[in-house]
Amino acid sequence: MALKTVEQYYESLKDLHPTTYILGEKVENALEHPLIKHMTAAVARTYGMENEPEGKKYLVANSDIIGEEVSRFVKFYKSPDDLLAKVRMLKFIAQRIGGCFMRCTGMDGINSVGIEVYNCDQKYGTNYWDRLLNFVKLVQQNDFVVFSGVTDVKGDRSLRPSQQKDPDMYLHVVERDSKGIVVRGAKIHQTGSICAHWGLIIPTREMREADKDYAVCFAVPTDAEGIIHVYGRGTLEARALQDCDLGNVKYSKFSPMVIFKDVFIPWERVFLCGEHEFAGEMVRNFGNYHRHSHGGCKCGVGDVLIGAAATATDYNGLPNVSHINNKLAEMLKVTEAIYGCSIAASVESTPTPSGIYNVDPVLSNTSKLYEGKELAEVIRMMIEIAGGMVADIPSDRDFDHPEIGPLLHKYLKGVDSVSTENRVRIFRLIEKLAFESRDIVSNIHGAGSPETHRMTILRNADIESKKKLAKNLAGIKEE
Amino acid sequence: MALKTVEQYYESLKDLHPTTYILGEKVENALEHPLIKHMTAAVARTYGMENEPEGKKYLVANSDIIGEEVSRFVKFYKSPDDLLAKVRMLKFIAQRIGGCFMRCTGMDGINSVGIEVYNCDQKYGTNYWDRLLNFVKLVQQNDFVVFSGVTDVKGDRSLRPSQQKDPDMYLHVVERDSKGIVVRGAKIHQTGSICAHWGLIIPTREMREADKDYAVCFAVPTDAEGIIHVYGRGTLEARALQDCDLGNVKYSKFSPMVIFKDVFIPWERVFLCGEHEFAGEMVRNFGNYHRHSHGGCKCGVGDVLIGAAATATDYNGLPNVSHINNKLAEMLKVTEAIYGCSIAASVESTPTPSGIYNVDPVLSNTSKLYEGKELAEVIRMMIEIAGGMVADIPSDRDFDHPEIGPLLHKYLKGVDSVSTENRVRIFRLIEKLAFESRDIVSNIHGAGSPETHRMTILRNADIESKKKLAKNLAGIKEE
Amino acid sequence: MALKTVEQYYESLKDLHPTTYILGEKVENALEHPLIKHMTAAVARTYGMENEPEGKKYLVANSDIIGEEVSRFVKFYKSPDDLLAKVRMLKFIAQRIGGCFMRCTGMDGINSVGIEVYNCDQKYGTNYWDRLLNFVKLVQQNDFVVFSGVTDVKGDRSLRPSQQKDPDMYLHVVERDSKGIVVRGAKIHQTGSICAHWGLIIPTREMREADKDYAVCFAVPTDAEGIIHVYGRGTLEARALQDCDLGNVKYSKFSPMVIFKDVFIPWERVFLCGEHEFAGEMVRNFGNYHRHSHGGCKCGVGDVLIGAAATATDYNGLPNVSHINNKLAEMLKVTEAIYGCSIAASVESTPTPSGIYNVDPVLSNTSKLYEGKELAEVIRMMIEIAGGMVADIPSDRDFDHPEIGPLLHKYLKGVDSVSTENRVRIFRLIEKLAFESRDIVSNIHGAGSPETHRMTILRNADIESKKKLAKNLAGIKEE
Amino acid sequence: MALKTVEQYYESLKDLHPTTYILGEKVENALEHPLIKHMTAAVARTYGMENEPEGKKYLVANSDIIGEEVSRFVKFYKSPDDLLAKVRMLKFIAQRIGGCFMRCTGMDGINSVGIEVYNCDQKYGTNYWDRLLNFVKLVQQNDFVVFSGVTDVKGDRSLRPSQQKDPDMYLHVVERDSKGIVVRGAKIHQTGSICAHWGLIIPTREMREADKDYAVCFAVPTDAEGIIHVYGRGTLEARALQDCDLGNVKYSKFSPMVIFKDVFIPWERVFLCGEHEFAGEMVRNFGNYHRHSHGGCKCGVGDVLIGAAATATDYNGLPNVSHINNKLAEMLKVTEAIYGCSIAASVESTPTPSGIYNVDPVLSNTSKLYEGKELAEVIRMMIEIAGGMVADIPSDRDFDHPEIGPLLHKYLKGVDSVSTENRVRIFRLIEKLAFESRDIVSNIHGAGSPETHRMTILRNADIESKKKLAKNLAGIKEE
Repeated sequence: MALKTVEQYYESLKDLHPTTYILGEKVENALEHPLIKHMTAAVARTYGMENEPEGKKYLVANSDIIGEEVSRFVKFYKSPDDLLAKVRMLKFIAQRIGGCFMRCTGMDGINSVGIEVYNCDQKYGTNYWDRLLNFVKLVQQNDFVVFSGVTDVKGDRSLRPSQQKDPDMYLHVVERDSKGIVVRGAKIHQTGSICAHWGLIIPTREMREADKDYAVCFAVPTDAEGIIHVYGRGTLEARALQDCDLGNVKYSKFSPMVIFKDVFIPWERVFLCGEHEFAGEMVRNFGNYHRHSHGGCKCGVGDVLIGAAATATDYNGLPNVSHINNKLAEMLKVTEAIYGCSIAASVESTPTPSGIYNVDPVLSNTSKLYEGKELAEVIRMMIEIAGGMVADIPSDRDFDHPEIGPLLHKYLKGVDSVSTENRVRIFRLIEKLAFESRDIVSNIHGAGSPETHRMTILRNADIESKKKLAKNLAGIKEE
Repeated sequence: MALKTVEQYYESLKDLHPTTYILGEKVENALEHPLIKHMTAAVARTYGMENEPEGKKYLVANSDIIGEEVSRFVKFYKSPDDLLAKVRMLKFIAQRIGGCFMRCTGMDGINSVGIEVYNCDQKYGTNYWDRLLNFVKLVQQNDFVVFSGVTDVKGDRSLRPSQQKDPDMYLHVVERDSKGIVVRGAKIHQTGSICAHWGLIIPTREMREADKDYAVCFAVPTDAEGIIHVYGRGTLEARALQDCDLGNVKYSKFSPMVIFKDVFIPWERVFLCGEHEFAGEMVRNFGNYHRHSHGGCKCGVGDVLIGAAATATDYNGLPNVSHINNKLAEMLKVTEAIYGCSIAASVESTPTPSGIYNVDPVLSNTSKLYEGKELAEVIRMMIEIAGGMVADIPSDRDFDHPEIGPLLHKYLKGVDSVSTENRVRIFRLIEKLAFESRDIVSNIHGAGSPETHRMTILRNADIESKKKLAKNLAGIKEE
Repeated sequence: MALKTVEQYYESLKDLHPTTYILGEKVENALEHPLIKHMTAAVARTYGMENEPEGKKYLVANSDIIGEEVSRFVKFYKSPDDLLAKVRMLKFIAQRIGGCFMRCTGMDGINSVGIEVYNCDQKYGTNYWDRLLNFVKLVQQNDFVVFSGVTDVKGDRSLRPSQQKDPDMYLHVVERDSKGIVVRGAKIHQTGSICAHWGLIIPTREMREADKDYAVCFAVPTDAEGIIHVYGRGTLEARALQDCDLGNVKYSKFSPMVIFKDVFIPWERVFLCGEHEFAGEMVRNFGNYHRHSHGGCKCGVGDVLIGAAATATDYNGLPNVSHINNKLAEMLKVTEAIYGCSIAASVESTPTPSGIYNVDPVLSNTSKLYEGKELAEVIRMMIEIAGGMVADIPSDRDFDHPEIGPLLHKYLKGVDSVSTENRVRIFRLIEKLAFESRDIVSNIHGAGSPETHRMTILRNADIESKKKLAKNLAGIKEE
Repeated sequence: MALKTVEQYYESLKDLHPTTYILGEKVENALEHPLIKHMTAAVARTYGMENEPEGKKYLVANSDIIGEEVSRFVKFYKSPDDLLAKVRMLKFIAQRIGGCFMRCTGMDGINSVGIEVYNCDQKYGTNYWDRLLNFVKLVQQNDFVVFSGVTDVKGDRSLRPSQQKDPDMYLHVVERDSKGIVVRGAKIHQTGSICAHWGLIIPTREMREADKDYAVCFAVPTDAEGIIHVYGRGTLEARALQDCDLGNVKYSKFSPMVIFKDVFIPWERVFLCGEHEFAGEMVRNFGNYHRHSHGGCKCGVGDVLIGAAATATDYNGLPNVSHINNKLAEMLKVTEAIYGCSIAASVESTPTPSGIYNVDPVLSNTSKLYEGKELAEVIRMMIEIAGGMVADIPSDRDFDHPEIGPLLHKYLKGVDSVSTENRVRIFRLIEKLAFESRDIVSNIHGAGSPETHRMTILRNADIESKKKLAKNLAGIKEE
């Protein structure tokens, strides 16, 4: 019961009516829209996997809250094994979706919020932890999709939230009464928000006393009054709009901006409100967890990158060429390092007072740094291996054209044993993998930017103890 | 007279009626098509520059053939200074177009063909050089645009032209009589072919005796009977088709596949026909020249990448941040190395028997190797500096929408002094610079792939003499 | 009893009289020699750690063979936890030695031999496993140091062992009778062989039928008759010979060539003799284990590199400089990736029929590839951060000189709070870390060369399954 | 007459008696010392080349000052061609020395000082330019070796010269009278100071009003009273002290610290004294020139690195292995980029009021950045290609030993056609090239550190104009 089927997921979406704008138009039935449906399909596929024998091993776990099998996407991380299982699950799914399936932000959000609301309750006697448990129960029982709304629009980057000329550049509380609070602001890059049932909204940075109205965390249905989803356009819309040349024939990604136009949140869904000293840790936890998530999913995508490049090589007639093998090994090196560091960050995780385990921040940020810097090189190598056809193949519609179709089938053939259609398909997939802006930018900026990862590593690496090691070996005795 | 104006260029195109297919449709007036016109505008801009004082310094030279001022795009390289002037011209233009303007393949083609037809005449007493001179005269007098058709579709990459199951996978002579020859085959990645007046068709690889029908070089009008241009689709068509969110508001690039369906070429336009031993050198010359060209134009584009990143930084409110400055310096390092090695390849050029100067192959290929490998990192750094908004900004049409437009203008503002519109514009430009597949793939595969460049470097670097240097220093006396 | 103290280790060495040549002289008391004693001290230090509370947690384990506490250096890997414990132990020790302590080759050797002799017994009914167990028992009971002799001198690299002009270029059996075998050949880069009690000799590559005399594995005391250790000189001997400017004041490394001049091995110490099909797997196991070991020890050394650079920064008066912090973060990134991938290779280890666990080969080779390529960059960054003084500081003896000593103390002072002596000490340590050839070359060639690691990754990565993932997503249905 | 022979150079040194300390001892006849003589030999070799037909083409130029042929090492850069000739000369020599020959700091110093003293005279009516001309005449007429003393010891790096606790941490004027000035301080990393006739002392950084006593430039004989040269020890002294295993059998490098213990300088040799605003430009000129010099000499050394790696490959029996060829190409790429950017910096040089040409700073610093970062990777690849024997070959004396010599000759043989002696020689050369600290650290810190190069690039790159290019293309019209 706590696990939905694909059909139940689609059915459940019908009850949602998120206000949605796409390319300048207000869209009633967003989930059917050609620019939306491929991501919904990716989310739906995770429900499918929950109900299949192999997938179940990765995606389903027992909840100690509701005492039932639940989706691992809505479970607390209660041990290093939970964190290992998460990384392996994300890799497994990403290998089969070839990109984002958007359910990990909610999972990482619930856990990062959990650690801090527990701490907050200990300090202030608040009851956030119980509220959160109730919310998680609801989510587990219904196998809901939750997106985490972290990234604010931020305005002038050199100014803190309370210093901005327009006070709404970071989401904040504009009213509060006995029933709840009213919030205003906007979150961007909200992957797949329209396919989710709930949003879990988290502060995007540490806050100080003056920013305390911005230290707010809560859950909200995606179609709550005042919430507006605005589709952010990526690079390859023409394909989806024309329903051809898709590359990845079933799945894709989108990331709306979500505007909160004075949205009411009842107190039972509020998990932080003004206790500013927990905002920073909350988002840092989220960052560390989400970088850890990338270690799984981006390695899975990496396997697709490698497989696509190797397939193109076969289709071009160049299997077992030394320099190509060398590049494939380098591609593997990077993707496995991303994965390996996330595995290690799980093994070296540590418990927090809430009972939730925190990943090792140095290792999870190391994983993400390799993604941020070197996955681009993996993609470049994929293009290099595949060849120039990544740039500019004629459209499927040209291939279907009575006059030039046969000429294209003739001239774009590679090795004799493979149809031109299949050859074109693999190049289209490579194009999608290389040029879908939402994916590529996510490699760099998802879960924070490389500079953030570097600073997180530095802050957590205990340089002082390393200095002592060096001084001991050098024979330096410090006064 | 030998320099066209912009208007004259557009006028001259009206006489051309290239057979063109775009996204599955035969298009009559291709040059007006939204997917074509931005590249035509880029070509036209070069004519504008020829007629402006500053541009003229870069784009105009004296011809020793027709004794008049001509476009440098149709001139032989008769000195190191000509090669230096070429690199500087290409940088100058690319800085102002932000991408490809497609006139360099013709220039590089004429010169690479010239060297070898001269050699061929010396060996076989053919009269190719005179034919080529006549063609160049025609081109100079009319300031024509010439594209060079080099890259064949190639079929199974492990087989030579004459070994392919389908003999047409490399362009070849299928008939010959007293008037001329008939050719069949297909060339791909023919940047801007539809905006050119003529094509100069060059073999794509070295040929052996058995491949001698494939050792064919000739000039042909772009609308000759039997020639079909098929638009190869890139990543950002939706923008051009909807005429919004262009990024680069005036210019773009496309690269058709050009099919030769039994095209007749009169002997006076044939510059090689069967003398297979010159085919390899011809295309190797072309490769070296064209890698040298990239040293200019990609450095110019690099300046735009750097400028765009620095502008985004200002607009985000983050000027003078240490790690951003560091990245800007690294971006400069790569683009200047690309440029510097092309400048050096000009200085160290050497004359051939034809009087045409050949660039230093080690240096020109070094330039291209940095482009092929490190320009991707420059682009990654641009994205890293600019921020996540590169991924998914709402469309211009959303900004114009009465309901959400004002909200978007409010929430996507950066520093107070810059309008949201301008901020969005710079992000759209960055998106175009980062994700236009034709440009990005060209960085890697244009003028040959990195592996080719490595092998060219190795073949030309005289490793034996370097071994001697090492042995001398080690005190090794070889028997 | 099964754990030796430092004193017992030194005492035990007195019974050994390995034939040793150093810089052209036969040396009687090699262990006192200035070029030997610093490595012996490093080995001795591991005995010290076995007997200290903190060290014991890392270095001591229970043996299921002799039912006692034994050094982890002589234990079989019977679980993923054993492999995790190994990585952590090596990191712990390397942080405190700042380099090699040479006990891991024996540990890796015992395990890699173990897996294959078990398999060989299964196939051929040999009794190698029992012999090995007896040897391991002996080693455990006496807490012996074992070095693994893997790398043969190899002669002409393009030829297999049996094809070499001189048949001795790979170690092989030259005689055999009822008592044992006689072997001839030479192993190079035998780190610390003179400080070990036993050698475990392993084939260096896969062998074919024709090479079967080369498929030989055995244990032998380091001072057996016919064994000659020839010191291989490194870069910094002058320091040790003059006993000043050491950098690492206590520890160092050396790697002799070990020549087997017709050495007799009794059958009870022979673990493979002619069963050529197990030679390849034996050394591949060893390679994978030893790359996994490097993940621990080189990360530990990496911590020293980072600590030394950070200390130099303090002493130079440049703490908290943005670009230096950035470099420290990059240094951490690489060392943590090396470590993280070894941790992950432990977690994803799998049992073999012998009960010994094999590390994940893709992850352990990924770890080593980062070491082979990027640790050099970590060292370069250490030099960059520290400054030019790494190159050429006057000698300790100059600092002690009555005339110039005071001038040097005056002029080479950095920040006021640190003595010149300490500043010089940290630079000397950095010099040692950057320029000790045995360490630096080991980063690249230890446990095989990067090309081997790439090929191992490729062979184990199941590219075919990744192709399937890509084809599924592209919609390719293969006939 | 203005060109010395080798013999005349050696003869001229006999008149010099620099006060010299080496490894704690005052040395009378420093030039014969085993740690000094190999660098003197390198300098002497440049005199030899001046007198040989091929060398003369590179090393000899006409002086417009004395109207004779002079060494290019003591000539002003009066045209882009002079700068091109310099780069080519340095490459030519470095290919034949395999390292430093120390004559370029003087050449770069004379020119960088020249530009600023001319400017200073214009502003203040001083007569520095005439004094400098007189000094240059003297140097040209005698073909003297001049070292440039730039790098001060610097003390606490966070403090300016006048803020240091000890005022002597930067060289400064401590007295002045009608005859001249007295200076105190210390310069480090003074490559080959003992083999030079004169030093040209230049401020190491920009100076402010408060630092004006530190804004001092002058020429001084290397054996002037009060000057003390203290040998700074490098990594490989044992070889030179034992006269074996040298690697580079003739040439090497050393870099003393030069202490100025109240040295008197007559006014006629003083070229700046208190005009602080010229100090910064002087050293920045020097930096740019010297980075430009590295473009020549380090490319020449790079050729030796490549040749040594390729020779080792032959000797190991592995010619024409794909991955090795790939690495050789990458090694070429880096060294050619270093060279190419210096060539380009010459071509794009610009005249200063003095008539001396300044190199393009962006290109010369780009060249040096590649050296600083990527030459380390070239060296790593050399080690990777050559193999583990780089780490630890037995000594020449072992090879000569009656007992083990024959065994070593037997076992360290590679391909049949090459003697073991020659194989060992090439490995020793590789060791020298990879591990001579003075050379390796010079790659990184010579002519300033990478961070300096980045900042120089950024300061000179005109980012504002690049922003304009981007804004134009994005359609941004700024108010």
